[in-house]
Amino acid sequence: MRQAGRYLPEYRSVRKKVSFLELCRSPELIAEVVRQPIERFDLDAAILFSDILTPFEPMGVKVDFPEGGPQLEFTINEPKDVKRLSDFDIEKELSFVFDGIREIKKILAGKPLIGFAGSPFTLASYLIEGQASKNFNNAKKFIYQHPKAAEEMLELLTDVVARYLEAQIDAGADVVQVFDSWGGILSNDDYLRWSARPVEKIFSQLANKKVPRILFVNNLAPYIDIVRDIDCEVVGVDYRMEISDAAKSLPGKSVQGNLDPSVLFGTTENVVRQTKRIIDSIKNPNRLIFNLGHGILPETPIEAVQALVDTVHNYR
Amino acid sequence: MRQAGRYLPEYRSVRKKVSFLELCRSPELIAEVVRQPIERFDLDAAILFSDILTPFEPMGVKVDFPEGGPQLEFTINEPKDVKRLSDFDIEKELSFVFDGIREIKKILAGKPLIGFAGSPFTLASYLIEGQASKNFNNAKKFIYQHPKAAEEMLELLTDVVARYLEAQIDAGADVVQVFDSWGGILSNDDYLRWSARPVEKIFSQLANKKVPRILFVNNLAPYIDIVRDIDCEVVGVDYRMEISDAAKSLPGKSVQGNLDPSVLFGTTENVVRQTKRIIDSIKNPNRLIFNLGHGILPETPIEAVQALVDTVHNYR
Repeated sequence: MRQAGRYLPEYRSVRKKVSFLELCRSPELIAEVVRQPIERFDLDAAILFSDILTPFEPMGVKVDFPEGGPQLEFTINEPKDVKRLSDFDIEKELSFVFDGIREIKKILAGKPLIGFAGSPFTLASYLIEGQASKNFNNAKKFIYQHPKAAEEMLELLTDVVARYLEAQIDAGADVVQVFDSWGGILSNDDYLRWSARPVEKIFSQLANKKVPRILFVNNLAPYIDIVRDIDCEVVGVDYRMEISDAAKSLPGKSVQGNLDPSVLFGTTENVVRQTKRIIDSIKNPNRLIFNLGHGILPETPIEAVQALVDTVHNYR
Repeated sequence: MRQAGRYLPEYRSVRKKVSFLELCRSPELIAEVVRQPIERFDLDAAILFSDILTPFEPMGVKVDFPEGGPQLEFTINEPKDVKRLSDFDIEKELSFVFDGIREIKKILAGKPLIGFAGSPFTLASYLIEGQASKNFNNAKKFIYQHPKAAEEMLELLTDVVARYLEAQIDAGADVVQVFDSWGGILSNDDYLRWSARPVEKIFSQLANKKVPRILFVNNLAPYIDIVRDIDCEVVGVDYRMEISDAAKSLPGKSVQGNLDPSVLFGTTENVVRQTKRIIDSIKNPNRLIFNLGHGILPETPIEAVQALVDTVHNYR
């Protein structure tokens, strides 16, 4: 959940020298910012530094990353716009990601590396909205107004994400995670059709790679009965629901999460208490990967992160 | 769920003549726009036309309503800012709302009128953010950084909302609804403390008025076990979760909802099918108030709304 990020002074000093896009495209700098939090906190796993929108540019959609969040050069408004999205040579066009993974692996000393991609529905939502949105109403309208074009777009994105994650595994990723950041704006029916089905297709394509597959759903609770039936090893749980309730509803799966990142702005005592509460709430420790329940925020106090990590490492 | 709104040409023609704020402050125009959808669709109940931020101006915070959504004149950034919020004479300062209710009652011919207010946490979030937000991170940070100031602000808002709804009932509202539009960004613990507890206080203060109390939670699923214990007659269910699952988890309460408003952009056949599916899914018809699961969108086709209303009126 943004292990490398603006809360770290050493990350900010890298970002003073290069833009976000330059950072995402430099294998050496990717490895550098991935190393920083691992070195500082002795974290148990690393996560690739990249952006879920990275595959857009080779598909034909330039993305800019100003302070307020990503801005797409064009948006999908009508069915014919889908034709502007093109398939591409993933190994070649996104080589900086795979080279970055190889660089990271050199310095991880056996710690696992998590690769990742956005879910097809999340990527489609960005393509329709052009940016993050409060409610993604345009994306939701599009699937009702133009279901065939939406399906065509999702098929392309599903194929791209599956091959992108395969290539990450081939480059050395030990685990893969799909971020379904915006599936949580759909009705149950629509979630199954537009978000869960494409993710299932991706995970089934990755099954023979034998690496753990994590699905993070931002706002899991309404869809947990659907997620239960998705073939994957781990479900990332957002901060809204109790992680013990999630674990109960997901037999056979491990859960990852789910401390609310805003807790890190409160007292250290409360950080420690809430962290222990999550650990205590999952009886079988093999079923829990402790994590935040959403991305760490830019001004998060480092001492709070340290207290969190110390608690996870030393409790039980 | 925005019965009166931009999807209606007759509403748009009123809005051509007056601003949103002028409309909210004119008892005659309030009654006029409330009447419009009732007359067009013969709906079974009316809902007051107003904005959840209406109480802010007499509290000392001017609100502007440009196209992109409400903008507050100042925001609560630090504990001392809370002192700038003042209590006020509700009957006097918001008389246009109560006069509006009396005007509406004259033309409703016995149909019930639903009054409403925002939940204290939702109002507090707006006061901290200054506008709608993608993630309300500032609001969440504030309650951790300044819990005492946050409590003080919520106490004031709880008192204001309770008296505001009492006055709406005294003016003629037959039902009251609290919109917890932004409670759904909290962890379970925080939802209980910051959102549910203030709503409970309001509902307990209203209990002796003997009118049905509706709580709408935008993103109910993660908090449904908390909502079950809130003393109210009806729970409004957003479009994300299955309404039958909500009903099962809320014994003794009726449910209101929950068609996804984007369904209205698809085919009429699908509007009818989804509407029937919701009706069929609640065995006891006395436990269901059919509604959308979120606000109707501006460009919604009127024929779709008509098909929805016809189905609700004629099915079963």
